[in-house]
Amino acid sequence: MTLKTARFFLRTLQTRNASNVSFIGLGQMGTRMANNLVKKGQQIKVFDIVPEALSSVSGAQQCSSAEEAARDADIVVTMLPTGDIVKETLLAEKGILKGMPKKALLIDCSTIEPKMAQELSRLSTDSGVRFIDAPVSGGVTGAEAATLTFMVGGADADLAEARPVLEKMGARIFKCGDIGAGQIAKLCNNLILGITMIGTCEAMNLGVKLGLDPKLLTDIVNVSTGRSWSSDTYNPVPGILPNVPSSNGYAGGFSVPLIAKDLGLAEAAALSCGTPLMLGAMAHQLYRALILNGYGDKDFSVVYEFLKGKK
Amino acid sequence: MTLKTARFFLRTLQTRNASNVSFIGLGQMGTRMANNLVKKGQQIKVFDIVPEALSSVSGAQQCSSAEEAARDADIVVTMLPTGDIVKETLLAEKGILKGMPKKALLIDCSTIEPKMAQELSRLSTDSGVRFIDAPVSGGVTGAEAATLTFMVGGADADLAEARPVLEKMGARIFKCGDIGAGQIAKLCNNLILGITMIGTCEAMNLGVKLGLDPKLLTDIVNVSTGRSWSSDTYNPVPGILPNVPSSNGYAGGFSVPLIAKDLGLAEAAALSCGTPLMLGAMAHQLYRALILNGYGDKDFSVVYEFLKGKK
Amino acid sequence: MTLKTARFFLRTLQTRNASNVSFIGLGQMGTRMANNLVKKGQQIKVFDIVPEALSSVSGAQQCSSAEEAARDADIVVTMLPTGDIVKETLLAEKGILKGMPKKALLIDCSTIEPKMAQELSRLSTDSGVRFIDAPVSGGVTGAEAATLTFMVGGADADLAEARPVLEKMGARIFKCGDIGAGQIAKLCNNLILGITMIGTCEAMNLGVKLGLDPKLLTDIVNVSTGRSWSSDTYNPVPGILPNVPSSNGYAGGFSVPLIAKDLGLAEAAALSCGTPLMLGAMAHQLYRALILNGYGDKDFSVVYEFLKGKK
Amino acid sequence: MTLKTARFFLRTLQTRNASNVSFIGLGQMGTRMANNLVKKGQQIKVFDIVPEALSSVSGAQQCSSAEEAARDADIVVTMLPTGDIVKETLLAEKGILKGMPKKALLIDCSTIEPKMAQELSRLSTDSGVRFIDAPVSGGVTGAEAATLTFMVGGADADLAEARPVLEKMGARIFKCGDIGAGQIAKLCNNLILGITMIGTCEAMNLGVKLGLDPKLLTDIVNVSTGRSWSSDTYNPVPGILPNVPSSNGYAGGFSVPLIAKDLGLAEAAALSCGTPLMLGAMAHQLYRALILNGYGDKDFSVVYEFLKGKK
Repeated sequence: MTLKTARFFLRTLQTRNASNVSFIGLGQMGTRMANNLVKKGQQIKVFDIVPEALSSVSGAQQCSSAEEAARDADIVVTMLPTGDIVKETLLAEKGILKGMPKKALLIDCSTIEPKMAQELSRLSTDSGVRFIDAPVSGGVTGAEAATLTFMVGGADADLAEARPVLEKMGARIFKCGDIGAGQIAKLCNNLILGITMIGTCEAMNLGVKLGLDPKLLTDIVNVSTGRSWSSDTYNPVPGILPNVPSSNGYAGGFSVPLIAKDLGLAEAAALSCGTPLMLGAMAHQLYRALILNGYGDKDFSVVYEFLKGKK
Repeated sequence: MTLKTARFFLRTLQTRNASNVSFIGLGQMGTRMANNLVKKGQQIKVFDIVPEALSSVSGAQQCSSAEEAARDADIVVTMLPTGDIVKETLLAEKGILKGMPKKALLIDCSTIEPKMAQELSRLSTDSGVRFIDAPVSGGVTGAEAATLTFMVGGADADLAEARPVLEKMGARIFKCGDIGAGQIAKLCNNLILGITMIGTCEAMNLGVKLGLDPKLLTDIVNVSTGRSWSSDTYNPVPGILPNVPSSNGYAGGFSVPLIAKDLGLAEAAALSCGTPLMLGAMAHQLYRALILNGYGDKDFSVVYEFLKGKK
Repeated sequence: MTLKTARFFLRTLQTRNASNVSFIGLGQMGTRMANNLVKKGQQIKVFDIVPEALSSVSGAQQCSSAEEAARDADIVVTMLPTGDIVKETLLAEKGILKGMPKKALLIDCSTIEPKMAQELSRLSTDSGVRFIDAPVSGGVTGAEAATLTFMVGGADADLAEARPVLEKMGARIFKCGDIGAGQIAKLCNNLILGITMIGTCEAMNLGVKLGLDPKLLTDIVNVSTGRSWSSDTYNPVPGILPNVPSSNGYAGGFSVPLIAKDLGLAEAAALSCGTPLMLGAMAHQLYRALILNGYGDKDFSVVYEFLKGKK
Repeated sequence: MTLKTARFFLRTLQTRNASNVSFIGLGQMGTRMANNLVKKGQQIKVFDIVPEALSSVSGAQQCSSAEEAARDADIVVTMLPTGDIVKETLLAEKGILKGMPKKALLIDCSTIEPKMAQELSRLSTDSGVRFIDAPVSGGVTGAEAATLTFMVGGADADLAEARPVLEKMGARIFKCGDIGAGQIAKLCNNLILGITMIGTCEAMNLGVKLGLDPKLLTDIVNVSTGRSWSSDTYNPVPGILPNVPSSNGYAGGFSVPLIAKDLGLAEAAALSCGTPLMLGAMAHQLYRALILNGYGDKDFSVVYEFLKGKK
């Protein structure tokens, strides 16, 4: 039996065994991800600190605590707002690690500091539980359509076991390195995103103020060197693309505080290795200034509206 | 005869008539563009202020002044470094407007201030010459492969006449609006480019310093929200893509002073309409700081090396 | 007679001769400056494009055009918003140069581009008129109290002649160099000012949000390395100093559009000599973003309020 | 006995009692501070992890560990590079808290995160030791001349006890608030400093490139709105002031990594309360880019040389 065949069998086996999956954290992203698990035939238990959220995943078994959800689980998936909240959810009196069986696998899909991922991994190991970090990109749309990209840090065997679960929620899985490497990749991607979106907003706004048709300018940029996801998939000018936040009053989507959070994490990571982020730092501050000036509940492409101005 | 038919005939007629084409400005871009005209069967006269440059277009008729090159031309194409140089080349004693026949068409492919394009148009009109601005994107590679994108400002009829010539040098032509609109579109595109490249450099550098494989990080970014031309076509990390400046010691390509120039033009345009360019201004200053610190002859993706540091 | 004695006599002579002084431009600054001339015994003619402004200088002879005001003048002082407006006021049909006698002296106190100062000097010389640039610092308060600082570019003899007039409006006169040098000095000073004010706002806001008493923090900064005019004379936090805009709802003072204008001029000057202004560019964009978001009629120290946020 | 009299007696008493003072951390600052204690008649024990440093304070009793230095001390002063190092020096096997008597007072003069100061206070309290944070401003010059400013966070009684010791090393003492408040004040001051210095460098460089005499420009700025400690006391242009780093090849002084460290701490503090630092973030990144490009051992005013450029 070759190594490759062995892996295939192992994987098949693991796929079969993962009968008990729990999902903790039913926000904008988590609800959609959990629903995809159910739709694709995976029975799950769910828990969220907000009782109303529990009913958002039809077909799931609702639990009254993280501990209860984690009990008897082969795999627990967490999708929570911050590293501190994940840590608390692991360690609390009715927390995940209280309930989770030895050798079970914890998949943390939250976006958190790489160093916190390493700390969570140590805490899990101390409780006999395996851990991988698997943050996602693709946003609410990707979560809904099960086309998320997972960026994974951890052991190969653990990823192999996680794979069948991740594949029900996403389209691509990248193994990035050791524990925390998934987070690093996520932060690097979002760092580019946060900057490129502002750059696109600045240029679209400039063009429009100087008389260009924004649709035409978009067409030009999208076949030129200025092309990016921010211009061709998530254009910040209202009316260019049909199903993006900018065409819907900048509602929904990826909120300003969330991109600000990710840029803050990127900056902390950059600080740890003495790496300058010239535009990243500036972008971070700009998003934070937006939060303080009335744009805190909008999609991050609302930078366009801020630059355009109120008068 | 409908207007559409009339246009068709007019265009056919113009195509046939444009037997006399001159090309002025044989730098990195101009030489390649002029050579493509010759390759595709267009007889041309050429002029450049540097005598050695004249022989770089084999098959072209070499002239000793702009005036000589422009004499009897139906169409004169200019590809020069700055608006002031175009203006001087138009107005000089042996300049273009001295030689150019009435009603001939001047196509300025240089990247210059939108307001300067309008001034050049007025000067041309005063001499009985028609004018369009048609700056390009696509860089040296696009010039070589005749896949440039032209962004055109001016009258429809003039563009119709220019089209057969432009199509020999590029793959796409966008009519952007009145005189200067081509320049505006170009600046908006390059504004995004200058910002996105720095953002990509910052993130790639951060990832590498934190232990990620840059090839893997590129693969992730290219299918995620951080994707852009700067990551998938012109990656700034040495060794990721084969035929880009970063894999060749940052030689050739789009030099730091050129992107700095374009961002300066974008800022001047933004100033004229009170539009803030938060990251654009920062990117501009950063490229200018690079010029002063030893990177002035490198491709603009060399920002990666600056951020990585010397120690 | 030594050179020094000769100069003294020349100056005395000029002081006596400057009986005919005209003042053009009666805005916030000009009105106060012109009033000081009158108060200190200088008879003047005045003109402003806004008829109501003419009556703001009691004791002055009101004129119906710049030409009329300039006629028979030994010295004409201009205090206007932009270089283009000064130029227009010089060249218009009823403009200054139409009325001004040969060899008379034009003192431009406006803040304009150094290059424009040089152009205005040429235009004046072409009309037989002498020119110096003499922009001021000190703001409305300094104009009111006749404690302005004049930064002068031009010939020594011309400054000697201007001096008795300038001394009636200000406390200090610096000879900076040739024509335009006064403007350069002014822009350099205001570049520091625009940056330092934002830095002070950021730090005061940070301290207050973290629980420090702003008065105490000001006391500390003012005896430490963070001390500056922005902290000890024009503190941006309401209630720290009695007679500054921040303690009066950010009304009056040095408006956001004016500092934005000066930073724009500084940037243009920097561009002309390839000098990077990292924080200057950023400060410029921030003030421009403030204009577009409702702070356009406030003193520039209102950055504090923007950073503090609305929520 | 009034409260004021009581305080006087208490203070006199404390002054008399503080016979046992130890000083830990003999770097650029610490050596000078400790020497001033000795010069003013205070017997002290000293320790530094670098054995050679011990002999830099003549008249002090050299110890072989922090524990030994702290033993029997009434007051221990620490002056160390980072919060983590202070923490380690407190908790190590031969650390301060192992040796320090109950109720003795620990004065931490290091510049560290406000939150770390709070943590150190808790750790001290757990060992029965009192704690205040007392970071300084004034730099090496102020340390040498015993003119430092102390910014203190902690209990009034503890400061009263510390005062006689602090007064031997500095000229001013500000009580800023609870534990950590001294650090907050210090960071706010240095945030302004880091920004203002860059602004001053940008403007001086611009003026010089445009032909102004830097001495004249300094004179103008120093009586105008651009005035600051960075222009009048620590001018970044070589040759303007006699005894500053810029006039000595940017050697000595306040190194680029130290201001970068302080701006990083300010940013972390700003992040904790959602406060934007637009220019602060940019300044931080710029200093970090300087470290990576060969300026890591220079005084922070070397920004002037970076902006001036090498060519």
